[in-house]
Amino acid sequence: MSEPEKSENIPDESAVKEIPNGGNPAKSKEDFDLAAIYVSDAQYNRNIYFDTSPQAVRLYLLYNHWLPKVLLYFFILVDLCLALFEEPAVLPLPSWATMLVELLCLLVFTIRLVHYAKVIPRDKFWKDPKNICIIVILMLTLVDMIIYGALKAADCYGVRWSRVLRPLLLVNVTEGRQLRRAFRSIRNALPQIFYVFLLFMFSVLIFSLMALKLLGKRGLKTIDGTPYFTSYLEIVFDLYVLVTTANSPDVMMPAYNASFVFAIFFILYILINTYIFMSVFLAVVYNNYKKYLKEEVRQLVRAKRHKMVRAFAVLQEQKEEGGEPVVTQANWNQVVHLVRPGISNAHRELLWSVCDDKNQGAIGKVAFVQLADLLNIEVITIKSRPHPLNSLCPALYQSAPSRLLCRMVQHRAFVIVYDLIILVNAVFIGLDEENPMIANSEWAFLALYLLEILLKLYVFEPRAFFSRHSFWNCVSTAQIQSTRFDTIIVVSALVATIVNSTMKSSGGYTSRQILDIVFILRVLRLIRVVDSIKRFRTIINTLIRIGPAILTFGQLIIVVYYIFAMVGMELFKDKVKFFEDPSDPAQLYCGNPLLKGSAFAQLNYCKNNFNNVVSSFILLVELTVVNQWHDILPPAGAAGLLMTP
Amino acid sequence: MSEPEKSENIPDESAVKEIPNGGNPAKSKEDFDLAAIYVSDAQYNRNIYFDTSPQAVRLYLLYNHWLPKVLLYFFILVDLCLALFEEPAVLPLPSWATMLVELLCLLVFTIRLVHYAKVIPRDKFWKDPKNICIIVILMLTLVDMIIYGALKAADCYGVRWSRVLRPLLLVNVTEGRQLRRAFRSIRNALPQIFYVFLLFMFSVLIFSLMALKLLGKRGLKTIDGTPYFTSYLEIVFDLYVLVTTANSPDVMMPAYNASFVFAIFFILYILINTYIFMSVFLAVVYNNYKKYLKEEVRQLVRAKRHKMVRAFAVLQEQKEEGGEPVVTQANWNQVVHLVRPGISNAHRELLWSVCDDKNQGAIGKVAFVQLADLLNIEVITIKSRPHPLNSLCPALYQSAPSRLLCRMVQHRAFVIVYDLIILVNAVFIGLDEENPMIANSEWAFLALYLLEILLKLYVFEPRAFFSRHSFWNCVSTAQIQSTRFDTIIVVSALVATIVNSTMKSSGGYTSRQILDIVFILRVLRLIRVVDSIKRFRTIINTLIRIGPAILTFGQLIIVVYYIFAMVGMELFKDKVKFFEDPSDPAQLYCGNPLLKGSAFAQLNYCKNNFNNVVSSFILLVELTVVNQWHDILPPAGAAGLLMTP
Repeated sequence: MSEPEKSENIPDESAVKEIPNGGNPAKSKEDFDLAAIYVSDAQYNRNIYFDTSPQAVRLYLLYNHWLPKVLLYFFILVDLCLALFEEPAVLPLPSWATMLVELLCLLVFTIRLVHYAKVIPRDKFWKDPKNICIIVILMLTLVDMIIYGALKAADCYGVRWSRVLRPLLLVNVTEGRQLRRAFRSIRNALPQIFYVFLLFMFSVLIFSLMALKLLGKRGLKTIDGTPYFTSYLEIVFDLYVLVTTANSPDVMMPAYNASFVFAIFFILYILINTYIFMSVFLAVVYNNYKKYLKEEVRQLVRAKRHKMVRAFAVLQEQKEEGGEPVVTQANWNQVVHLVRPGISNAHRELLWSVCDDKNQGAIGKVAFVQLADLLNIEVITIKSRPHPLNSLCPALYQSAPSRLLCRMVQHRAFVIVYDLIILVNAVFIGLDEENPMIANSEWAFLALYLLEILLKLYVFEPRAFFSRHSFWNCVSTAQIQSTRFDTIIVVSALVATIVNSTMKSSGGYTSRQILDIVFILRVLRLIRVVDSIKRFRTIINTLIRIGPAILTFGQLIIVVYYIFAMVGMELFKDKVKFFEDPSDPAQLYCGNPLLKGSAFAQLNYCKNNFNNVVSSFILLVELTVVNQWHDILPPAGAAGLLMTP
Repeated sequence: MSEPEKSENIPDESAVKEIPNGGNPAKSKEDFDLAAIYVSDAQYNRNIYFDTSPQAVRLYLLYNHWLPKVLLYFFILVDLCLALFEEPAVLPLPSWATMLVELLCLLVFTIRLVHYAKVIPRDKFWKDPKNICIIVILMLTLVDMIIYGALKAADCYGVRWSRVLRPLLLVNVTEGRQLRRAFRSIRNALPQIFYVFLLFMFSVLIFSLMALKLLGKRGLKTIDGTPYFTSYLEIVFDLYVLVTTANSPDVMMPAYNASFVFAIFFILYILINTYIFMSVFLAVVYNNYKKYLKEEVRQLVRAKRHKMVRAFAVLQEQKEEGGEPVVTQANWNQVVHLVRPGISNAHRELLWSVCDDKNQGAIGKVAFVQLADLLNIEVITIKSRPHPLNSLCPALYQSAPSRLLCRMVQHRAFVIVYDLIILVNAVFIGLDEENPMIANSEWAFLALYLLEILLKLYVFEPRAFFSRHSFWNCVSTAQIQSTRFDTIIVVSALVATIVNSTMKSSGGYTSRQILDIVFILRVLRLIRVVDSIKRFRTIINTLIRIGPAILTFGQLIIVVYYIFAMVGMELFKDKVKFFEDPSDPAQLYCGNPLLKGSAFAQLNYCKNNFNNVVSSFILLVELTVVNQWHDILPPAGAAGLLMTP
């Protein structure tokens, strides 16, 4: 997708010295802006080689603002979602409408790109493959739209081939750094994987040859009565499927029925190709990914240091003649304010005291370079504020019954009682909800959960209770376990249940959708139990912490799936049909005479087709999950046959 | 199986000082024996706390001899293989015969145990759980045999329940160190895995509850017309199967046909439970296994050092008054000779010069302790001997045509030509061997391969050609690629082909078995190509190097499979029958009326049964491979039903 961004990663050391630094003139606003940008680039690992002129710096500040970034991602999302409305569509829209929206998206991408071009020097812009990529994608899309529009106008059949390019935007926008890094790591691991793959294929071919010689002439029959293992290519395919274990005992059974010796052949095959080779693949990918990621991280750290050195060069002052250049606390404060406008005074002073540990009022280069990492450390400010009720009405809040209540809620038994209530609730959910007793019990449980929230609000300071950090993991005490997540679920369940019963009592009918939401919310409420057990909380917290890495990988998957879905839709749309009416005789062969009697139709897989983008994605997930993939494939072959004549 | 062998791992430091060491008396033969045992124990990581009396040392030397060890493993193998001949048998033998053999095995195990008891101090013997284990296994087996014999004599039905204990012998014999280590690592990782498993089960239960609420009341039908997702327990089972991906798209199809929204539910489920949780399992097992293995290795290294210190204490002499104690070269030589009788003088001198790098004629403790590791380093002695033909007839061997031949064979093109020949051979193997032209071409290929071996023998020194180290990987030149493996394959193929064609021409019939062997050998010949490509050789060498670890794991698998096979055979034998005659109507339901119309019978899985030990093992492998396991299970349920009344 794009070359390793070396040109950006390491700014020339010489450039650092270019920055004017005569005497100790007062720093201008531009200087602070520039320094703040370097620090913030270092903090967020941005590797953009921007122009240092005041005008470009102002543009660059705007470029890094969250709003244009969110807008960009929103329009990429819109662009990707257009597949829902274009032929073959889930919700058909006239093609002029989708094309208008797409034009708007293209316009937004162009503006963003022009903005980027204004920020960085022109030669850097044209040297960067990701900018070229975006320009090519935009041009090709425009050309495709014009051709498609012309063909449509002439009532000809047109293919929107440029749709496969859309996900590439996700990779090539400036913010797609993580994604590009993942792609680079994969690409770097490819040569190693390729050799293992060759050896693996060689092994499959050798085993197939052996199978042909051993089994081909024995006149064995498969369960359908067709000859077993007589054609070399079929054996290769069958044994390749066996590596994924998708046809595991079936492919072996005819040979095994003939003699148990052949079972040993298959077991040996599975051992070598499924277990050993797949483990080697995993090991090679793991090792290479780790190796290249380490290299990338090393480059990142180096680039971060360079940026901080540049920021220091902008801010530095000569405190005494011939001494080391330093940054004064006042200047430092101003930069930190610019980098993180919302920072509290206490937090800022804490950071300063970490940097200036000898309390000299100014820091040198080494201490200044730490700033980017210090800013990334999350600092939680806990203020032991009194409860607002305590301030409003101390007499009541400090009274004996009120204090007893507080002690009760803070007691471990309170948590246990509520865990038990949840378990009882789980049993009630499992029972038949059409029984009126069960249906009404829901109100009791809702009341109990609401009571819990109110009690906790009474006992704990509301801001601590709703604080961002106690979303899953509680900072101050393990007792405050009811979290924002909890509250949201309980309140939504309450609202949904009220809506549902209002509709029921007024119109007398139950909306299936609302009922579904009610059920989901009720079941989600049970997840709370996990939070009570410390070990479970640890595992969940670990999973949440690796979340961002999984998200990057998710984007990568979406890029790949989207491209395959687009190609698949053009090739296979309407080759396999699903009929809403199950009594339709065409349903027996999915509307495609070539599928008559195939395993695909018999297993009722007709809805696994490429007729719209949602079906395509679900089909691709099914193929990823591997099982039965050899039964899902045939329609593609059948469709191929249909297309040939 | 057995507690961490701490008691053995670290010999008491105090014991080291007990060893008499007055003045510099000449070392006796017993001293050398003792020192040699310590060194060899350190070299092979044996952790046996033996008696140091001369008599016990002599017994211990015998105990460590390879012959009794091989005999022990042979009798364990015989004991395990008895399952082939006992009811339900592959090859039935009268029960008195198998029991006689088993008695012989028990006798051998007892002798070995008594021998061990004589070697180590009595209190150590009774404190070691693995000895207790063996004694209990032997006693229980004897009791079981007596009961079974008595029941047989009275014509009653008896169960040989002690057979499940047999594989435990593999774990508990002194030599099963690696296996015990693997078991310990697994056991230590269990608590961590258990918590992840609980969370995983919680997630499955929550998703099942949600599925029940969302899908249970919609009146959906599966492909068989049975109600879909209406019973909670069935949903839990179905979703558990889905985690293994064995019923991947099928379980989703009815819901997906109703609405694509439900597909999202299933995709989310697979994402969380199959991918994320399974990855967490892998990560936890990997991390824990690594952690505990590291600890074990650390203990091993410590124990090794202690043993070498003890050996040093036996051999040490005071060279000068008040100086450090040392070991002289003469004593050192004698010990090395005892530890490794076949060591060459050059090799021994090399080792000494590594230890005594200052050439003082004696080494201190630090240098001596290295010896165990030095002995483990493989040293390859390459002697550039002249070719025997060169010595016999130098005029001929040094003549111009002979030298041209040598150059040709050593040329890279020679290897390429033979690789091409192999590829052509592969194509010929794939063709129909009943065509006489193809059948005769086999002779041409055999002649070509033989010619290659003869040419290489002519060019390279035969001992280098057949050397152990060039089995796969060639030491001196990459040109010598035809290895022992190759030669064995080619010569066997030649013999088998000759036998086959003799039988064909004399009796006019072709033996299927010999033909099979010929085919396998022909295909194996093709593996040579792998050896020509350097990258492939690297991968294969890596795989060979991790071979021992895989072997340990293989033993572990066999222990587990054997126990399950024994239990399975007692529970399910003859519940499912396979009929050699496919026209037998009972074949349609595997001889068990309860299986009429089940997926198991329809898929022709009748041979997947517990009717003998071979079938049981194959069935267990199939279950391990996961696919279709939910279809293989039902007979167990059916058998359970049969047993209840």
